[in-house]
Amino acid sequence: MNKQPKIAVIGGGSWATAIVKMLTENLNTIGWYMRSAQAIEHIKKNNHNPKYLRSAEIDATKLDLSKDINRTVAKYDILIFAVPSAFLVSELEKLNKPLKDKIIFSAIKGIVPETGLIVGEHFNREYDIPFENIGVITGPCHAEEVAMERLSYLTIASRDEQKAKLIGKALKSWYIKTKISDDIIGTEYAAMLKNIYAVAAGIAHGLGYGDNFQSVLMSNAIREMKRFIKKVHKMKRNINNSAYLGDLLVTGYSVFSRNRQFGNMIGKGYTVKSAQMEMSMIAEGYYATKSAFKIKQENGAKTPIIEAVYNVLYADKDAKKEFKKLTNKLD
Amino acid sequence: MNKQPKIAVIGGGSWATAIVKMLTENLNTIGWYMRSAQAIEHIKKNNHNPKYLRSAEIDATKLDLSKDINRTVAKYDILIFAVPSAFLVSELEKLNKPLKDKIIFSAIKGIVPETGLIVGEHFNREYDIPFENIGVITGPCHAEEVAMERLSYLTIASRDEQKAKLIGKALKSWYIKTKISDDIIGTEYAAMLKNIYAVAAGIAHGLGYGDNFQSVLMSNAIREMKRFIKKVHKMKRNINNSAYLGDLLVTGYSVFSRNRQFGNMIGKGYTVKSAQMEMSMIAEGYYATKSAFKIKQENGAKTPIIEAVYNVLYADKDAKKEFKKLTNKLD
Repeated sequence: MNKQPKIAVIGGGSWATAIVKMLTENLNTIGWYMRSAQAIEHIKKNNHNPKYLRSAEIDATKLDLSKDINRTVAKYDILIFAVPSAFLVSELEKLNKPLKDKIIFSAIKGIVPETGLIVGEHFNREYDIPFENIGVITGPCHAEEVAMERLSYLTIASRDEQKAKLIGKALKSWYIKTKISDDIIGTEYAAMLKNIYAVAAGIAHGLGYGDNFQSVLMSNAIREMKRFIKKVHKMKRNINNSAYLGDLLVTGYSVFSRNRQFGNMIGKGYTVKSAQMEMSMIAEGYYATKSAFKIKQENGAKTPIIEAVYNVLYADKDAKKEFKKLTNKLD
Repeated sequence: MNKQPKIAVIGGGSWATAIVKMLTENLNTIGWYMRSAQAIEHIKKNNHNPKYLRSAEIDATKLDLSKDINRTVAKYDILIFAVPSAFLVSELEKLNKPLKDKIIFSAIKGIVPETGLIVGEHFNREYDIPFENIGVITGPCHAEEVAMERLSYLTIASRDEQKAKLIGKALKSWYIKTKISDDIIGTEYAAMLKNIYAVAAGIAHGLGYGDNFQSVLMSNAIREMKRFIKKVHKMKRNINNSAYLGDLLVTGYSVFSRNRQFGNMIGKGYTVKSAQMEMSMIAEGYYATKSAFKIKQENGAKTPIIEAVYNVLYADKDAKKEFKKLTNKLD
């Protein structure tokens, strides 16, 4: 093989682990930063991540693991960020190496809570990284199925087609197909919004609504997503492509979805706090709801589902009443 | 209440039973034709259908049951047909009363195998019923959830808005919301095509594909459906409305779906014959596939999913190989 791109993954969770696994199918060396020294030792010895996505077998001989983010950032040209959005800022604060000349791909499906920005915009505004050096890796893709090597399709978006292609090539294998897109803003908003709709699906389920209603909710959600994204970044896009509709469906319908689980608990009467305590992982949709609500208030998009979820999660409204009202706004 | 419309339901299966239940919420008398004298006696005594949708409680005092289709047809102005499409022609052959002046609504989600036409077209061509007197009742709606009185949304389509409204009013209740549409052809094709995509989803599941792939399949299916319907009847429609996308999702994702179950058996290696023998009900998608394939060959729509299902069900192709080929055509 010719000279390989120098790619590192930032983050030690399930999705980071899945991406590392994909990369090991093509690259001889992958940088991988995670906080836990213990996890690093475990991976080196046992070829799998002890806490997240345990079932994914990873060839540790190809990994350049480090618990020092600065070492990893300094050594690699392309950084794939896959930490939960709530931890991004605190991770970036550790940096004393410049990011300016790096190529940044975000595999974070959420909004940066501190700035209310999607990840690409955050890197652009806070670190002066031009959009040409920013990209997004998006599903529909549950990490769990990557571990099982079940066929999955990824969309890689960047304004620079060459960079999208390069990452696409590094990720694809017999169980991963990749597609490139130039809609970096739209795919990233879709990845964030779908988590809110998955929370909504969970709340509805928890309240006792059935499959018939669920399909109406998803059919309204994709129309709402289209309206929202159009207000944020107008361009020609087919909202029914896998990166938008597919990503919504895999999250809204799947038992793996943490956002759906979180919503389900809310629908069953848990408070936000107790639901969050019960779950060991953070539901991205919780933060996404707050930001999306704010954006929607500014741009005036008609988004009854986001509104209902916001009212339940942040305005202390009764889920049952709020969703009853919502049913009259759907069709 | 003022003068009520004279509505009868033709058919004794699950969906017919669900529709009758909806009508009992609004009307004092509903005509109901079914073949089985035994079932009729059972319903009169026990307020539920013995074989289909047993869990639905129906107020039998409001029912004008008959096993004579001619009696029912002669007595009522509006006929809602809800027999499996494969039995429609044999039921209609029993008729010696004219249909010409009747208003016909189809709740049949399929194609008439003998003519290859959707039900509305069949009544129009074979019985000279003008399209103004024809309508469609479509989901997303599993009969099982109607029995449970879980909130469901129906779309009622007709060229004559007044008739659609009238049926919508007769069906709606605290657990049924209705919406009207003028896209009688599009909604009926959608109701038929979604069964093919549910068979495809089942085959994929049976072959071992996971949720990630399923979401890609559905995202491609809705785009394929849009292309197909556009070729058949071009008009402005939002394919993401509940009658199209919602109906696709409820069928493709739900455990209640017979089409998905049928596909699943095929994916697991059953022959078409053995799968059909194993299931007590007919999977509409089986017949729909043949007709849709023929239509698609005539109009040239790009429909790789229909093609793959056709090849497996009718051209004796290996499901595993055929779906492997299909995965390369999806994105």
